[in-house]
Amino acid sequence: MRRKDLLDLQSLTADEITYLLDTAQSFREIVARPVKKVPTLRGKSVATLFFEPSTRTRTSFEAAAKIMSADTYSLAGTTSSAVKGESLKDTMLTLDAMGIDAFVIRHPFSGAAHLAAKYVPTKPVINAGDGTHEHPTQGLLDLLTIRQVKGRIEGLTVAIVGDILHSRVARSNVWGLHAMGASIRLIGPPTLLPADADQLPVEVFTHLEAGLRGADVVNILRIQLERQDGAFFPSVREYARLFGVSKAKLQVAAPDVMVLHPGPMNRGVEIASALADDDIAVITDQVTNGVAVRMAVLFWLMGATASVA
Amino acid sequence: MRRKDLLDLQSLTADEITYLLDTAQSFREIVARPVKKVPTLRGKSVATLFFEPSTRTRTSFEAAAKIMSADTYSLAGTTSSAVKGESLKDTMLTLDAMGIDAFVIRHPFSGAAHLAAKYVPTKPVINAGDGTHEHPTQGLLDLLTIRQVKGRIEGLTVAIVGDILHSRVARSNVWGLHAMGASIRLIGPPTLLPADADQLPVEVFTHLEAGLRGADVVNILRIQLERQDGAFFPSVREYARLFGVSKAKLQVAAPDVMVLHPGPMNRGVEIASALADDDIAVITDQVTNGVAVRMAVLFWLMGATASVA
Amino acid sequence: MRRKDLLDLQSLTADEITYLLDTAQSFREIVARPVKKVPTLRGKSVATLFFEPSTRTRTSFEAAAKIMSADTYSLAGTTSSAVKGESLKDTMLTLDAMGIDAFVIRHPFSGAAHLAAKYVPTKPVINAGDGTHEHPTQGLLDLLTIRQVKGRIEGLTVAIVGDILHSRVARSNVWGLHAMGASIRLIGPPTLLPADADQLPVEVFTHLEAGLRGADVVNILRIQLERQDGAFFPSVREYARLFGVSKAKLQVAAPDVMVLHPGPMNRGVEIASALADDDIAVITDQVTNGVAVRMAVLFWLMGATASVA
Repeated sequence: MRRKDLLDLQSLTADEITYLLDTAQSFREIVARPVKKVPTLRGKSVATLFFEPSTRTRTSFEAAAKIMSADTYSLAGTTSSAVKGESLKDTMLTLDAMGIDAFVIRHPFSGAAHLAAKYVPTKPVINAGDGTHEHPTQGLLDLLTIRQVKGRIEGLTVAIVGDILHSRVARSNVWGLHAMGASIRLIGPPTLLPADADQLPVEVFTHLEAGLRGADVVNILRIQLERQDGAFFPSVREYARLFGVSKAKLQVAAPDVMVLHPGPMNRGVEIASALADDDIAVITDQVTNGVAVRMAVLFWLMGATASVA
Repeated sequence: MRRKDLLDLQSLTADEITYLLDTAQSFREIVARPVKKVPTLRGKSVATLFFEPSTRTRTSFEAAAKIMSADTYSLAGTTSSAVKGESLKDTMLTLDAMGIDAFVIRHPFSGAAHLAAKYVPTKPVINAGDGTHEHPTQGLLDLLTIRQVKGRIEGLTVAIVGDILHSRVARSNVWGLHAMGASIRLIGPPTLLPADADQLPVEVFTHLEAGLRGADVVNILRIQLERQDGAFFPSVREYARLFGVSKAKLQVAAPDVMVLHPGPMNRGVEIASALADDDIAVITDQVTNGVAVRMAVLFWLMGATASVA
Repeated sequence: MRRKDLLDLQSLTADEITYLLDTAQSFREIVARPVKKVPTLRGKSVATLFFEPSTRTRTSFEAAAKIMSADTYSLAGTTSSAVKGESLKDTMLTLDAMGIDAFVIRHPFSGAAHLAAKYVPTKPVINAGDGTHEHPTQGLLDLLTIRQVKGRIEGLTVAIVGDILHSRVARSNVWGLHAMGASIRLIGPPTLLPADADQLPVEVFTHLEAGLRGADVVNILRIQLERQDGAFFPSVREYARLFGVSKAKLQVAAPDVMVLHPGPMNRGVEIASALADDDIAVITDQVTNGVAVRMAVLFWLMGATASVA
């Protein structure tokens, strides 16, 4: 059960996902220690290449790497050779030749991580979000958080609410949840639902209440205000009124419904601020699980090499 | 004598300040070693969140953390989720959940560090400058530098010259010097003096010579050209003529007067270039003391946790 | 054979260059290890000060430092006190006072590294590219790569093609190759050749084919599109037609000709994409050698201090 890269959840088997969740669960204890340092990846190096800004994802990967004693290299699109027009291919070949052992890449173009992975045939590439395609470690941390709270994933009804069309988080959730046997609902205005929704293993709802009815888990996506020109819905206020989730609107969901949000949140838009701070929202657990999941992924992809040393 | 945070000097007692200066003094020896590495904070993590740029302060905190073997995470306002409109609250909750152990924050709004400290109730927050409020580690390093040169702080006359109105350095100096028993003078044009100066434990001077007369210490503030629209004084040349400090103008001060400047300097504006390079100016000592003081603060706030491990 | 700084190759002797190449050759093995970590510079700190962006050079120096266990501090021109108008002098004095042990500086002005070196009289400064002057570690890595492939440097004919006028890489190559006994040719359109070419130990060619005839090594420079206003050649297409190097154009060179490029490449402009990927182009070897050469330089300049500890 070895892979070179983690590019998506669509191609992962339930066994692979379960292995990653189990490994992450065991690493969570390390993240909670007062002294967070294990020698697992000592003498290894991980480069984060972020062609889009992201505090939480980049820092989470860096924390995962540093806790396991790897050296980290942070390369942002705006300060890198991208300014001089260097191709992704040459950037990858260069970092490979410098002895970088693994690559975490975020890129505005769908498929960029797959391309990057081809350029370094012997080194792991981890997709930290590519365009509107996938964000597999976010999918994994959502799965881990659900499993921790519910004790299982199989048989649950998970509703994903919001801007599905532009959301790589939604896609990684769909494939991961599907592999693990959950029922998946997508909820959003028709303009923010993907055209190919009928080819996904999902049920589609354009009214919030209908979609939330009986849901065990509600994953509320961020309205990505900076990504769209505003033509996808009449106004932010209108969106908040129709698709913003509050505790009141969750009355129709399962009595023990839990709420996820990938962050960063627009409080008062897609999620009521009081709900974000409520116990049924486990948003900070997601963040902690994010570090554990990324440790598990780095360990999975770099571990064999590490044990050689 | 334990605190969670260091947000200002106004609320610190003379005992607490003395403890920090003594600790910093003992750490200064480590900074001067050829091998600058002690295991004090191994397995701990310190995040610097700078919503305003600053080479010296950020690097100084990073050096303090790294010398004590902590991992550092550098988050700049412009490359972080701040771009996406994430609130300070959610940024703090997220980094807390990732397992970051301490936070160093610089922010353009006065009070931001206090707010940040509330969002992470179990973790230390260190104010590295918030708006025009305070910059407590700068105040401490000034105190340490004065104490090293003069052997004491109590009873000294310290003149602070320049743009007092916008200066968090001035405020932290005032409270720290006051707690330690110094007499404080503020010198500047009326437009750059704070409206509440009469409520501070200071004497106010609007003519440089009068304020410098007999001073033991002169702390020359940077004219923050980028912060103001120029309406505070007629011109840079006019300011330099009336309030720029040179060795000649220091003739009226105490014979053994010493000169401080928090940097970065505008040579030829608030400080004559020859004075900046003179032996009575101890500006590079301030910088070295800055690392030692920040080590002391990190040790003070993180130390108990560290010893638990 | 000790120096404080590495500012250029012009002033290095053949013995010094040979020592650095031999040391770098021995370090190359470490870069290829699965666990890339030696304690050589533990407790030491290296600051990279980049006033121009560069992924490859900055990361290469950071990798060299981290592999030898030094702490690294990354300071970019745009996020530093440069914004506030601090002088290079005060930046250097400040970092020196913080206990930084060595400085790597890239700057748009020729001579900036020399100036920086004067401000820190007891600490090593390494020039990572200053204006159109020199980029000595690039020159060294080119020499090392040539020596690895050809077994020698003396007696070889090396052709440097492209924008010689603006190229610090070309200048460092010229001085390094000259010291090591190679014959050097500069090839470019008259507008991109330096006015002082007759004072350099080189032969000048304004036609590509004539310059390539019989060459053992061809070093193809990047056309620095962002540096010039376009008046130096009629068009990029015209440049590619006349001075772009392809495998076909290399027919006139020595049968075992090897090709270098400092990167980042403009594929299809100065170098045909197929040639960049051909076995005779050793561009990724150059990158790996870059890390080894920078380890050698750091070791040379910091090593004595290190052994004191």
